[in-house]
Amino acid sequence: MVGASDGNLFSRRAFAQYERIAEQPIAIVNPRSPIVHGVETVARCQDVEGGIDLALMLTPQRFTIASLRDAAEAGASAAAIMSQGWAEEDEDGRVRQAELVAVAEQLGITLLGPNHLGFVNLWDRSAATALGLNLPAEPGAFALVSQSGAVGSSLVGYASRHDVNFSFVVTTGNEAMVSIADVVDYLVDDEHTKAIGVFAETIRKPATFIAAARRAAELGKAIVVLKAGSSELAARTAQAHTGALVGDDRVIDAMLRQEGVIRVRTLEDLVTIGNLCAHTGPLKKSGVAVLSVSGGACDLIADRGQEVGLDLPALSASAYSRLAEVLPPYGHPQNPLDVTGGALAKPEVWRRGIEVMADEQEIGFVGIVTSLPTSGEPQRDMTFQVVGEALRETGLAGAIFPQLDQDQSEYVRQVKAASGIENVLPSVDRFTVAAAALSRWSTWLRERVAPVGAHEADATSARLASLVPGAAVSEYSARGIAIAGNVPLVPASLATDAAEAIAAARDIQGPVVLKICSAEVAHKTELGGVLLDVAGDDAVGAGFEALTERARQAGVNLEGVLVSPFRKGGIELLVGVTRDPDWGLVLAVAFGGALVELLDDSALRLLPVSRAEVLRMLGELRGSRLLSGFRGSDAVDLDQVANAVVAIADTALALGPDLESFEVNPLRVSADAVEGLDVLITVRASS
Amino acid sequence: MVGASDGNLFSRRAFAQYERIAEQPIAIVNPRSPIVHGVETVARCQDVEGGIDLALMLTPQRFTIASLRDAAEAGASAAAIMSQGWAEEDEDGRVRQAELVAVAEQLGITLLGPNHLGFVNLWDRSAATALGLNLPAEPGAFALVSQSGAVGSSLVGYASRHDVNFSFVVTTGNEAMVSIADVVDYLVDDEHTKAIGVFAETIRKPATFIAAARRAAELGKAIVVLKAGSSELAARTAQAHTGALVGDDRVIDAMLRQEGVIRVRTLEDLVTIGNLCAHTGPLKKSGVAVLSVSGGACDLIADRGQEVGLDLPALSASAYSRLAEVLPPYGHPQNPLDVTGGALAKPEVWRRGIEVMADEQEIGFVGIVTSLPTSGEPQRDMTFQVVGEALRETGLAGAIFPQLDQDQSEYVRQVKAASGIENVLPSVDRFTVAAAALSRWSTWLRERVAPVGAHEADATSARLASLVPGAAVSEYSARGIAIAGNVPLVPASLATDAAEAIAAARDIQGPVVLKICSAEVAHKTELGGVLLDVAGDDAVGAGFEALTERARQAGVNLEGVLVSPFRKGGIELLVGVTRDPDWGLVLAVAFGGALVELLDDSALRLLPVSRAEVLRMLGELRGSRLLSGFRGSDAVDLDQVANAVVAIADTALALGPDLESFEVNPLRVSADAVEGLDVLITVRASS
Repeated sequence: MVGASDGNLFSRRAFAQYERIAEQPIAIVNPRSPIVHGVETVARCQDVEGGIDLALMLTPQRFTIASLRDAAEAGASAAAIMSQGWAEEDEDGRVRQAELVAVAEQLGITLLGPNHLGFVNLWDRSAATALGLNLPAEPGAFALVSQSGAVGSSLVGYASRHDVNFSFVVTTGNEAMVSIADVVDYLVDDEHTKAIGVFAETIRKPATFIAAARRAAELGKAIVVLKAGSSELAARTAQAHTGALVGDDRVIDAMLRQEGVIRVRTLEDLVTIGNLCAHTGPLKKSGVAVLSVSGGACDLIADRGQEVGLDLPALSASAYSRLAEVLPPYGHPQNPLDVTGGALAKPEVWRRGIEVMADEQEIGFVGIVTSLPTSGEPQRDMTFQVVGEALRETGLAGAIFPQLDQDQSEYVRQVKAASGIENVLPSVDRFTVAAAALSRWSTWLRERVAPVGAHEADATSARLASLVPGAAVSEYSARGIAIAGNVPLVPASLATDAAEAIAAARDIQGPVVLKICSAEVAHKTELGGVLLDVAGDDAVGAGFEALTERARQAGVNLEGVLVSPFRKGGIELLVGVTRDPDWGLVLAVAFGGALVELLDDSALRLLPVSRAEVLRMLGELRGSRLLSGFRGSDAVDLDQVANAVVAIADTALALGPDLESFEVNPLRVSADAVEGLDVLITVRASS
Repeated sequence: MVGASDGNLFSRRAFAQYERIAEQPIAIVNPRSPIVHGVETVARCQDVEGGIDLALMLTPQRFTIASLRDAAEAGASAAAIMSQGWAEEDEDGRVRQAELVAVAEQLGITLLGPNHLGFVNLWDRSAATALGLNLPAEPGAFALVSQSGAVGSSLVGYASRHDVNFSFVVTTGNEAMVSIADVVDYLVDDEHTKAIGVFAETIRKPATFIAAARRAAELGKAIVVLKAGSSELAARTAQAHTGALVGDDRVIDAMLRQEGVIRVRTLEDLVTIGNLCAHTGPLKKSGVAVLSVSGGACDLIADRGQEVGLDLPALSASAYSRLAEVLPPYGHPQNPLDVTGGALAKPEVWRRGIEVMADEQEIGFVGIVTSLPTSGEPQRDMTFQVVGEALRETGLAGAIFPQLDQDQSEYVRQVKAASGIENVLPSVDRFTVAAAALSRWSTWLRERVAPVGAHEADATSARLASLVPGAAVSEYSARGIAIAGNVPLVPASLATDAAEAIAAARDIQGPVVLKICSAEVAHKTELGGVLLDVAGDDAVGAGFEALTERARQAGVNLEGVLVSPFRKGGIELLVGVTRDPDWGLVLAVAFGGALVELLDDSALRLLPVSRAEVLRMLGELRGSRLLSGFRGSDAVDLDQVANAVVAIADTALALGPDLESFEVNPLRVSADAVEGLDVLITVRASS
C-alpha cells in the first residue's frame, strides 16, 4: 500500500478490506509516518524485504510516476492506481495519463485504473481495493467488473444484502491500460467463475471483448452487461465524469445481442441475473413454471412476463389432472399456478407441484412465490424444506422469492442453507426479469450456430477488392461491384444518348425508370434525377434529355442515364452496411418508406453475419409479419431475402478497409423476386 | 370476532393486529370455547353487552349466513367476511355469493369481502384484519386498497421495511358488495389521506371510480393504480382465482390516463410512488434535478429517465457558473450533477447544489443519490443533515436514496427523523420511475381542463337521436347522420341508375369513386363493392352496372351507388367509437393502412372527450410526427382534425344507448382539408 495514511478514508477502507479478506503479506509505504493503520511503515517500496508483486497506489496524483518507478525497482509487475485527476478531468489530464502509460510500459508494469477502487480475488484471498466494506468475504461463482468504483461499491453492498458471493470484483476506472474487455477475457477462463457481470460506460478493445464472449458461450458461462449511455444525456454525462466516449449504443446493443450477452437495465438485475446464471448454468429446457401462494403474484408474473418475453408454457393434460388431485376445490391447475393459501397448512402441494412441472416437456425452471421465513412462523421454514427436497429429487432448477423486494435476513440464510435451496431472489418482479433472461440465454446457447470467422480471402473477394474504387463511385460502377458479389439487382443499361435509352427501354417491354448516373451525385432524387414509370419511345427520349439537362444545370459530370424496368408493389427493405469507428462494419436491415423510418424499426449486426443471424434480424423487426403474409400481402421467400442480405454483407467485407458504406435501398421483396433497385457505395476520403 | 379460534392462523393474526393497533372494544364469539386468544367468549353476537357495530367473520363458509343474521340482531351494520368458497370457486359459489348479498341487503348490512383479509383505519385505530403482522401501526397519509389479501399483506410488509405509514389499508376480495371504487370514493374525502394506492384485478362500478378520480384531482390527491390483467394469460389467471373478469385492459388504461390516475407496473412502485405523492402533493414546477456522489448513477438516471419520460431540464448559465464555483476542477456542472467524491469531505456542495437547483425556472423536485447512513460513518449522517436543512430553507421538494434497493434500517430512520428529511426512496431505479410519475401527474393536474360533463341534450342531439336507426343502416343514411352531427365528409350522391351516376360524376369534374350502398353490407370492399379512380362517362356507366350486378349476385338489396370525388394523397386516420360493455362508448384514433395496424399504434379514450384531450390523443400516437410535417409531408391543421374527431365522438354520444359503433374510416387529413371518406354505423341487435 503505497501512500497509505490514517487520515485518508480510502486508505483506511483499503487496509480494512485487506484485513477482512486477504492472506498475502502486505507492506505499507509512507516516508513520513513510522506507523500507519497500526503497522510499521517503510519509506520506499525498495525497502520491502523480498520485494513486492503489486503496488496499491494511494499516492496523490502528482507523485504517481515517482512511486511507480520505485515500485518497479522493488520488482512490482502490476499497480492499481486510485487517484483522480487524469483523463476524466480535461485535456491536460489526458496528456498526463498518456505519459503514465508510457512510463508503465517502459517499466513493464501492468496498470489498473487510474480513478478506480481496485480489485479483489476472493478465492486466492488477495485484496487491493477500497470498495465498500460490506463486500462478502466468502468466495462464490459470480465475478463482477465495474468501470465505476462508486457503482462497484453499491453493487457489492446489494450483493451482501442478498447473500451473493463473488469469485472476483474488479473496478477499471479510466482504463488507461487494462480495460473491461481484458478483465472479462481473463475471467472467462477462471475455473471458479461461472458467470460474469459487467457495469460499463464504454467497451474498449472490441475484438478482445467479442473473443471473450465467444469463449464464454463455448463454456456455457453467462456474461451480463449493464451498459450506461443508451440515452444521449447519459452519453454526455459519462463523457464528463470518465472522459470516455460511450460509442454508438445501438451498435453495441447489436454486438451484445449477436454474442449472446445478456443486457440488463438496472443494477439490481445485474447482480440478480448474473448470480442466478452462475448457479444454474444454461437451462436444459427453456420453459418456466411458477407456483405461488398468491393469485395476485400469478397475475403480475403473467403481465410482466409478457412485457419481458417470459416463456410460461401451458400445462399438459396429464399435469392438469395430477395437479387437480392435490389442489383444493377452488384451485385451478394452470401455469402460473396459484397453490392457494391451503399450501401453508399442506406443504406437500409444493412437492407435487414441482414433481409435475419437472415432468413437463418444455419446463426447465420453476419459480416459487412465498413469504420468506421469519423466526416463529415454522410453516414458512417447512415450505423451504419441502421445496428444497423436491428440487433436489427432481433435479429441476428453481428459485424461491417473496412478492416484494426484500433483503435476506440472517434467519432466511440459515433456513435456506438448511433446506439446500441455492437461489433466493429479491422479488416477483426481479424473478420475472431474471427468469426471462436466463431462459432466453439458454435458448440462444442451444440454437447458436458457430460464429462466422474473419472473412476469408477467396477468388471472389480478391476480384471484389480489386474493384474497390479510390474515390466516389457512380451507381453503374456500384452495380458492377454488387453483381460481382452475387447481390441480386434489377436489370439496368447505361445509355449515353437518347437512342440508346430508347433501345434499352424497348428491350424491357414495359414502363421504365430513368436515373442520372454520376460518381458526383449520391442523392439523385434531391436533384430531380429520377423519372419513374416512363413508357413509350417519345417519353423515354424526352426523359433522357430532361435528365441530362438537369445534370448540366447542376454542374454535374454524367456517365449516362440508367434505364431499368419500373417495378410496382412488393415490400421495400433498406439494407445498408456502414463503418462504425470502434466496431467496424455494421449491417442494418429496416423496412423502407417514411412511415417505418418514423417508427424507428431496424435491426443491426456487426459483420460478418451468418444466414441464421440474418433470419433472426428479420424476425426482430416489428413489421416482420409483413414478410410472412400479413393482411393479404403475399408471403415472401425468407431464405431468398436472407441470401441477398448475406451477399450484401459479404461484398461489403470483401471491399476492404476503405469502404465507408454500401447500401442497397430499396431491396424489393415480393412473392416471386428479391432484387435491389438502387445501390450506393461510398469510400473513405483518400488520405 | 365471530368464529375466532386459537387453532386458526387467520384468527390469531386478526387478534394480534387488534392488540397491536386498535383501541375499540372487542368481543369474541365462539359457542364452543369459553376462552379464545386469552379472552372470555360469548356464544352469539346477541350476547354482547351494548351490541356490536361490525362483525369480523372468521366462520367457515357454510355458517356465514346464520352468523350474519346473528350479527344483525346484535345491531351490526357492517361485516367483513374472510372465508373462501364463494364466487371465486365455481358457478355454485357464485350462486351462494348472490344469496349472501341478498341476505345482507335485507338485513341492512354492508359487506366487505368475502375472500379477503379485512381492513384497518390507522387514525381511528380500528382493525378488523388478518393482514401481515408487520403492518406499520403509526398512522400516515397514504391509503392502500388491495383486491388481493395476499398481495395486501406483502405490500404492508414492504411498507414496513421502507418506513411508509398508512391512513387506511383495505382489502376487497370478491367485492360482493363493496368494491375498490366504493373504497376509493370514501378515501378521497378522508382528511388524513393525501394519496391512494390501489392493487386491482378488476375495476367495478366505473361511474363511481371516475367520479372519485375527478374529486381526487380537484383536491390534488394522487391515485396510483397497479391493475393486473394487461396480458391475456393474467386475465385468464385472475378469472381463475377471484372469479373476476378483468375487462378490456386497453379501455381501462385509457380511462386511467384520461382521469390523471398514475398507472404503475410493479408493487414496489405502487408503494413508493403513492407514498411520495402523499408527502409532496403536486409539484409546482415539473422539472427534476439530480445530485449524485456517483457519476454512474447519473448515467443510469439519464438512461432510465429517457425510457420512462423523466424531465431533467438542462441548467441555466447562471446555475452553471454558481455550481462551477463549488465543484472540484474535475467536476462538470450539469443535470444530473455528479457532485464527485469530494462531497463526502465537503457537504456544503450539497447545500449549494440544492440552492442552485431551487432557483432554476423549471425545477420543482430534486433527487439526491448517496449511501444511506450506517453507524460509524458520520460523514453520511452529515449529508442527511445538510440536505435536510437545504430542502427546508429552499422549500424545494426532494428525496434521498441509495444506488441499489435497500431496506431502511432503524439507524437510517433515526438519522432521517433528526435531519427532517421526509422522503427516503429505495434506489436510483425506483426514484427515476417515481419522479417521472410525480412530475407527469403534476403537469397533468396543471394542464387539466375541466372534464366534459355528461352529454347534454340540445337541439342537435335531439335531432340526431331521432335519426337513430332501429336496425342496420346504409352508408348513405350513416352519412346523413354524420353530416347532421357536423362531421366533415367527402361529398357523395346516391345514384339509382347509370344516368344518375354519370350526371353526378360530371358534376364532380374529375375521377370518382363508386361504392355500392346497402344497409345489408358493412364491408363493401370484401364484396368487390368499391371502384376507385373511375373517369369518363363510359367508365362510370359501366362501373354502375358492374356494381349492381355484383350486389345482385351476392343477393344484396341495393339502395343505389354512391358517387364521390376520388381523393389521393394525405394521411389517413381511423376514427372509431365502439361500445365497451363496462365502460360505455370508447373512442379510438389510429393511423390507417395495414402497416400501422400491424404496429398497433392507436390511442383510446372514454366518451365524452374535450378537444384538448383529443389533441393529447393525437400526440400519443407513435406516428404523430406525420401530422406535423415529417419528411416533407405537409403539416396539417391539428385543430381541424381535433374538431372532426370531437364531432364524431359527440355524434356517437347523441345517438344514444342503442349505438354499437360509429366509425369514420378513413378520415383523410391533408394540409388543406379534413374529410371522412367512409362512414359506418352499427346498432345493437334489436331485443
